[in-house]
Amino acid sequence: MHNIFNYKVKVYYEDTDAGGIVYYANYLKYLERARTEALLTIGLSNKKIKKLYGLSIVVRSCNIEYKKAANLEDILDIKSYIILLKKASFTMKQTIYKKKELITESRTKLVLVNKNGKLQKVSSELIKKFNRYVINEQIN
Amino acid sequence: MHNIFNYKVKVYYEDTDAGGIVYYANYLKYLERARTEALLTIGLSNKKIKKLYGLSIVVRSCNIEYKKAANLEDILDIKSYIILLKKASFTMKQTIYKKKELITESRTKLVLVNKNGKLQKVSSELIKKFNRYVINEQIN
Amino acid sequence: MHNIFNYKVKVYYEDTDAGGIVYYANYLKYLERARTEALLTIGLSNKKIKKLYGLSIVVRSCNIEYKKAANLEDILDIKSYIILLKKASFTMKQTIYKKKELITESRTKLVLVNKNGKLQKVSSELIKKFNRYVINEQIN
Amino acid sequence: MHNIFNYKVKVYYEDTDAGGIVYYANYLKYLERARTEALLTIGLSNKKIKKLYGLSIVVRSCNIEYKKAANLEDILDIKSYIILLKKASFTMKQTIYKKKELITESRTKLVLVNKNGKLQKVSSELIKKFNRYVINEQIN
Repeated sequence: MHNIFNYKVKVYYEDTDAGGIVYYANYLKYLERARTEALLTIGLSNKKIKKLYGLSIVVRSCNIEYKKAANLEDILDIKSYIILLKKASFTMKQTIYKKKELITESRTKLVLVNKNGKLQKVSSELIKKFNRYVINEQIN
Repeated sequence: MHNIFNYKVKVYYEDTDAGGIVYYANYLKYLERARTEALLTIGLSNKKIKKLYGLSIVVRSCNIEYKKAANLEDILDIKSYIILLKKASFTMKQTIYKKKELITESRTKLVLVNKNGKLQKVSSELIKKFNRYVINEQIN
Repeated sequence: MHNIFNYKVKVYYEDTDAGGIVYYANYLKYLERARTEALLTIGLSNKKIKKLYGLSIVVRSCNIEYKKAANLEDILDIKSYIILLKKASFTMKQTIYKKKELITESRTKLVLVNKNGKLQKVSSELIKKFNRYVINEQIN
Repeated sequence: MHNIFNYKVKVYYEDTDAGGIVYYANYLKYLERARTEALLTIGLSNKKIKKLYGLSIVVRSCNIEYKKAANLEDILDIKSYIILLKKASFTMKQTIYKKKELITESRTKLVLVNKNGKLQKVSSELIKKFNRYVINEQIN
């Protein structure tokens, strides 16, 4: 489906901790990489949004459930979906799988802020770019 | 109050990103440091729990709201509270403040697992150690 | 050339700092990813070396020069060469380029240790695997 | 001695890797924290240097030897010395100890650059501030 963004990561030593598994904070790095690549698919990038619209994308909240552990040298599949789009924010659902096994499931709310850090509604042009990728959350 | 655990961190370059603020995943590192120190106050440590009980503490979920940004060289105050205690899990609420300003607010559910990664109920002795620190969530 | 290992990384927010550039410690993560992939080219992996030989690869020293800064969303090319091979250690030279611009140049000495952390000479079989990739340092 | 800067860090999960020890790149974070605190002792900070002089301190090279491993919950003592001072650069030697055991030893060359990233000689006032802390490298 064209509105699921797929991204792969590999687990390196830097990602793991003394428990032998991926450190819980490091999944948020994976999620952010996947969101960056999703933006590129839409034809945008953090740099471009800043340059064209003077806006930055900032994380407002993140809810993540850790279902299973991932280990060194695992290949992980991240699926990202835009499940909600508003004038100055959007919410992404993201799942991380190791083969068929669900590792994490998360929802991240992102807001668009101007250079003073204030919430700013985006142009209808930008909304349109995002809009065709919005997915109904029921579809998993 | 004896059941609020206080911990301070300072923001170094490693914690920030090109947006000039603390990177969103790095707050989870601060939270984990604060939880580690809270355990020490209780008379425990990750090492000790492993040695005495054969158990590890693993994060099951984390909900974090980012209210304001923190910057390089800021001193942050982290307050941690145990707001829920069960036989094989506990939930901590944690707030991060920069002076009087709320930066993040989060709830993290932690579970106790044995060496096979299976959930394990803890001894009544261990429950007792934690129990006197459990706080009613209304008290903020 | 078959004895140059090539690897690409992309700079994400997690890698940058408030100076707007890649944080100096994070280049060492890139270098380690590139070395891991180089091992795979040789037919090895950290896991495999542990399983087959009971050995771990540990960094003994790292000398890195930072020539230019890299920025958000840059694509970096890492070239890795084995420039010295001994019975229980090897040294890799690694360069990181942004297009034609040299960003960092480094030499990393790695040793093989057993499960007690003691230096251990490797089998002639393992030496042979590595040996065909050793490059004369003059060739840049 | 007044020209040795002392700084302590504690090893948290975030710092370790699946090998059970502190990840090699993360020592550079510790070193940078220690240098930041050393600057404060001198009466400076990254922010202050930027504000007063329009300069940033950037790492030009880092040579680090890993002598022993550090583990979860270890307390590490970092000693920092300015061993060389030039008009636009200075070199620090730093050692990390776990009790009496030497963990790492490193030399880091730092340069002062203006907002365009160009090397810039610093004022004699700034040189004077640093100069009284310069130590003869022989003294270990």
